[in-house]
Amino acid sequence: MPSAPVIPQLRINEQRMKADFDELALIGATAEGGINRPALSVTDVAARAWFVNRLEESGLTLNSDGVGNLSGVLPCPNPDAPIFLIGSHLDSVENGGRYDGAVGVVAALECARTIREANLTLPTHLEVINFTDEEGSWFSFLGSLGFTGQITEEDLNDSKRDNAAFRLALTRLGLSDRDVLQAGRDLSRYCGFLELHIEQGDRLEQAQAQIGVVSRIVGRSTYNITFYGEAAHSATISPHRKKDALHGAVLFLNHLYGMVDNDFPAGMVNCGDMSVYPGAYNIVPSRVMLRVEIRHEVESVLREMERYLVDVAYDCAEALKLRMDAERIIHRPVANLSEAMKATIEQVCEEMGLRYMRLPSYAGHDGQILDRFIPSAMIFVPSVDGISHSPLEYTRWESIVTGANVMLQTLLRTVYGDVHAP
Amino acid sequence: MPSAPVIPQLRINEQRMKADFDELALIGATAEGGINRPALSVTDVAARAWFVNRLEESGLTLNSDGVGNLSGVLPCPNPDAPIFLIGSHLDSVENGGRYDGAVGVVAALECARTIREANLTLPTHLEVINFTDEEGSWFSFLGSLGFTGQITEEDLNDSKRDNAAFRLALTRLGLSDRDVLQAGRDLSRYCGFLELHIEQGDRLEQAQAQIGVVSRIVGRSTYNITFYGEAAHSATISPHRKKDALHGAVLFLNHLYGMVDNDFPAGMVNCGDMSVYPGAYNIVPSRVMLRVEIRHEVESVLREMERYLVDVAYDCAEALKLRMDAERIIHRPVANLSEAMKATIEQVCEEMGLRYMRLPSYAGHDGQILDRFIPSAMIFVPSVDGISHSPLEYTRWESIVTGANVMLQTLLRTVYGDVHAP
Repeated sequence: MPSAPVIPQLRINEQRMKADFDELALIGATAEGGINRPALSVTDVAARAWFVNRLEESGLTLNSDGVGNLSGVLPCPNPDAPIFLIGSHLDSVENGGRYDGAVGVVAALECARTIREANLTLPTHLEVINFTDEEGSWFSFLGSLGFTGQITEEDLNDSKRDNAAFRLALTRLGLSDRDVLQAGRDLSRYCGFLELHIEQGDRLEQAQAQIGVVSRIVGRSTYNITFYGEAAHSATISPHRKKDALHGAVLFLNHLYGMVDNDFPAGMVNCGDMSVYPGAYNIVPSRVMLRVEIRHEVESVLREMERYLVDVAYDCAEALKLRMDAERIIHRPVANLSEAMKATIEQVCEEMGLRYMRLPSYAGHDGQILDRFIPSAMIFVPSVDGISHSPLEYTRWESIVTGANVMLQTLLRTVYGDVHAP
Repeated sequence: MPSAPVIPQLRINEQRMKADFDELALIGATAEGGINRPALSVTDVAARAWFVNRLEESGLTLNSDGVGNLSGVLPCPNPDAPIFLIGSHLDSVENGGRYDGAVGVVAALECARTIREANLTLPTHLEVINFTDEEGSWFSFLGSLGFTGQITEEDLNDSKRDNAAFRLALTRLGLSDRDVLQAGRDLSRYCGFLELHIEQGDRLEQAQAQIGVVSRIVGRSTYNITFYGEAAHSATISPHRKKDALHGAVLFLNHLYGMVDNDFPAGMVNCGDMSVYPGAYNIVPSRVMLRVEIRHEVESVLREMERYLVDVAYDCAEALKLRMDAERIIHRPVANLSEAMKATIEQVCEEMGLRYMRLPSYAGHDGQILDRFIPSAMIFVPSVDGISHSPLEYTRWESIVTGANVMLQTLLRTVYGDVHAP
């Protein structure tokens, strides 16, 4: 194992990273102070062009694939050496903030530049990546699912999506269905993935911690729940004949909101959409559709929550003489992440004298897709007031610098250590 | 007061009324066995043409007005005599049934023909009317509101309606805004209004009553209730920061559904529509709009229900740190109806040996608009299984015949008696 005596003192170049961050924040900048850079949009394409220039200026070898993941490689002398992957995403939600994704991209780029400038010869190749459509404007985790070869023809023809518009958007990157299906990398070449990201919540801030060591990325299940009643004149129907689908939905949600507080305190539930048919003030609703998602950091408990959700929906329907359908439309299992890398992050924090804590990520990240194939880890930095997916999203610059230095030290220790430890 | 010795034995001509009913049910007939005759539609216009023919064949004098109310008058020798009004409506809800409205029109027509055939000279004119758009396809109670001169220019420009389409539809009757605003009759000429209608509920059937004497038409208030929260990433927002507008709406409706059972057993509540914004499964709802209506047969209790509704909405918003707006968009006061006519209907039932009962109408009817100006009454006949506003709506033919004969006898006794008794 090569020795690296200067490593513990190595730090990234704050000014250079700040210049990158500020330039990037101008691409798709909104009047409210955020950015609008949905995947495959004109602004996303502009951000990609900017990223290509930065990678080339930094002396990295450009690389891309069939889903538009864009990366630069700092090669090591042994061409057969494994590859260590760092990075995040340039895309944003509509009217999002400047920090979500961008922080991880500029920090990864800066780590590669710092290592190259220090003339370090790593025992692995180092690849700095921008994953396509992390936010799911078109296809959730398109980049990491394509990278890991998990996209099928069925996925591309999923009728829940506007596939024609998606294909048209892909042509902005010069890509077609065929490219998407062939995007998978040789995953055996990759020895690890590390991402720096803003927390998007306020637990670090509340705990006055500077660094979050992501314990797990929570699992998520999304259901379409439909209650079926019978349309009737709202005023003349006798109470004993009434079959009000909305009443069933209200009873169900009322139980569900209580479920987390009472039975699954570490869980999360959200009903983000509801449609009522036929939708007239004087007609008893005959059909109500709900979109409900639940999240938990322990896969077996997520399954329990799923059973509870379906049972409660069934009971509420039965109590009101309604019919009910529950369809699970998305399931993303819990990602446990690399215990070795978590321990390394903590060790780095100890040595740097930083306040850190372990915490699960309730938001999804590309790491949860990669973790099944490549030992993965995430470092969080605090979000002020926990605001995210908003122009008001904010993280202090010193937090980002600290996070980037923890990332640099963690990746160095990992690649110089046992890079294959899961 | 003129004497009328043959009156107590006078009965309508069942066969003739049945032929009318069956012919009318063909106009706009649907495959499911109902009718589709929304106001001002092609089928409604066809039903009006049919009605004009029937009125003329029956020797009545045609009359119409600026909102398209269509009537035939059986005049009495004294031109200055008051007018007694009978009738209902030819229009239906979309995909409605054959009985709602049509029963009252053919029965009124048959009463006039029976009186004319019997060579009775009434002390009043008798006017058989079809009111426009009772069902509110365009404008709830357009006919009776126009008849009583209650439509204003503001009403016609109400931004909640597609006014351009409404004006276009009015041209099918050759009418314009100006006609609508000038539709009001000289109400001092009218001494009473009587309508036969199906119950649309199952209370008569449950009580095995043949005739319903409508005690009151319930008052109705319709509210737009809006809860305002804050959009956020559903998974990363801390519970103590979450402002979920849908949670507020669910809490509110859960209380409201219980309100009727617990505090206002004679009341009625319906939430027929709800919209959730921005409507994504992984975003905390920032805004939820509900359309809620409440009904009660006692005006002061309706007011209490209104206060309860707004208070509960406010409390639910406050409990979850949301903002709330409540806007009353419709208020139709309780119509108490003519006590004298109610008593006459009951007396007729007694003499005919019929099982009858008093009951409020939870559905709205033109009588509630007229009752403020003209002593009004309604006779209900049973709806099988209480089904209405549906192709499955059904009332037995013998019920309709019984109802028409009660109507005939009630109107005769009323016009020969003290026609002005409120």
